Amino acid sequence: MTQDPPREDAGPAATRLITTRAELRARRAAMDGTVAAVLTMGALHAGHLALVERARELADHVILTDFVNPLQFGPGEDYEAYPRTLEQDLALVDGLVDVVFAPSVQELYPVLPPMVSVTAGAAGRILEGAARPGHFDGVVTVVAKLLQLTAPHLSVFGRKDAQQLAIIQRLVGDLDLPVRIEPVEIQREPSGLARSSRNAYLGEAGREQALALSRTIAAARAAAPSAGAIRSVLREALERAEIDWDYAHALDPATLEPIGPEHRGEVLVVLAGTVEGTRLLDAAVAVVTAP
Amino acid sequence: MTQDPPREDAGPAATRLITTRAELRARRAAMDGTVAAVLTMGALHAGHLALVERARELADHVILTDFVNPLQFGPGEDYEAYPRTLEQDLALVDGLVDVVFAPSVQELYPVLPPMVSVTAGAAGRILEGAARPGHFDGVVTVVAKLLQLTAPHLSVFGRKDAQQLAIIQRLVGDLDLPVRIEPVEIQREPSGLARSSRNAYLGEAGREQALALSRTIAAARAAAPSAGAIRSVLREALERAEIDWDYAHALDPATLEPIGPEHRGEVLVVLAGTVEGTRLLDAAVAVVTAP
Repeated sequence: MTQDPPREDAGPAATRLITTRAELRARRAAMDGTVAAVLTMGALHAGHLALVERARELADHVILTDFVNPLQFGPGEDYEAYPRTLEQDLALVDGLVDVVFAPSVQELYPVLPPMVSVTAGAAGRILEGAARPGHFDGVVTVVAKLLQLTAPHLSVFGRKDAQQLAIIQRLVGDLDLPVRIEPVEIQREPSGLARSSRNAYLGEAGREQALALSRTIAAARAAAPSAGAIRSVLREALERAEIDWDYAHALDPATLEPIGPEHRGEVLVVLAGTVEGTRLLDAAVAVVTAP
Repeated sequence: MTQDPPREDAGPAATRLITTRAELRARRAAMDGTVAAVLTMGALHAGHLALVERARELADHVILTDFVNPLQFGPGEDYEAYPRTLEQDLALVDGLVDVVFAPSVQELYPVLPPMVSVTAGAAGRILEGAARPGHFDGVVTVVAKLLQLTAPHLSVFGRKDAQQLAIIQRLVGDLDLPVRIEPVEIQREPSGLARSSRNAYLGEAGREQALALSRTIAAARAAAPSAGAIRSVLREALERAEIDWDYAHALDPATLEPIGPEHRGEVLVVLAGTVEGTRLLDAAVAVVTAP
């Protein structure tokens, strides 16, 4: 990890920590070829490394942003307690990314909250947003800012945060941002359980119980291409109640509204439930061609 | 005005009409040097030509957008009746700009209203926005889109729409858009009256009466650098009531909040009033260094 002034001969293997917008823009302008952005709130783990790996496959340069965004935390949420592990993060991605951009709150938001901001609209008030008013508005605002600052050709986002991915795809489409959003498949443990930092909270029984999520996802995939069969899988899972479900929906990925029997094309299956007090998500995209 | 496919040797004198986002992006990517954007709703007149002239002074290429933005019209406003004069507009700027971008509503908003959009916040609900809920949200949304599509180095905006200019400067700052906003001075008639399409509605007595606006602006300028003296000028103008004032304010240009006695630096003076049934605006920026 170098923190010296940029050298003319610095290759992509020399990861640089940048903390100001001005230096980021200058460094970005000096990059030839294609650029991928990986936007994170830090506390990096294997899931983030899968995003970095995909970004490296797809672009010549990778900028990783590491910023805990106050705008997406509500009052009473864990903004203050959220882990800040910049030194560990830098060590994890050293040599894997060109730049780690880790600005201060004051640097990214000279005025907080900003006067002009982005809103996710109705799609930000359902599912994960239902209990977190303003959360997705904060997400799209910081993502818009970071995409402007990193000016990437593409940016990678995991499919597990399916609502976030859908909303960010709409951000890019609705505001004509010149960037391609590249979804990265969910990383799973050998059991099928979607990888998550929160899995560490689960005991042995909990890990077994949590498989209700991935089993439901697998059953929904197997039920494609029938829209009705997918909806039956979800209804039956809710009825079996192996875990404490928050929701299990089959949605139109463009609108995040529940699909009807006449829906054709991609369907976003989203699950959220609680196991041993830990809230878990899973998701999949299936293609529907029949009622 | 050519509408053929782009030619390798097409110079800036060959104005091209473009109606799709894809063609605009391709044409923009082929531009060398600096680019200025002039965003308009069409119905071009001398005021717009002053913007075009300034853009030509500041950049190698000029893209003029010509789009009546439905998002910034409220119910009961004149969206349907708003003049659409594309053929005349093209003739007016032919040879002066590289590109006229005039998309259809369906092209710019495949889904209307967009799910993800930009909001101007509290600054969009005061002054001109007080009676037009959502107006400035529509403005910042379309400006954000058009700045993404035209990807200019700079964009010119007139100082007469002072609140719009202030909000767009905040849009660019708050969302880190990589563009410089270049304010263009108010064009005035020899009498001092700020040029406006609406001046055509005024009779001879109205034109005389309307000078209350520009005289107040001149007096406010003369009262600088004293904040108190500027505020006295505005208070006295309101009391004299030569016209039917909507407002006369001295504002902090960054927040659009009224300045207090301790304010130092730039002050935005904004006037709005009605003469012979026609609503008129005027504005100025002064610098304050004393109470």
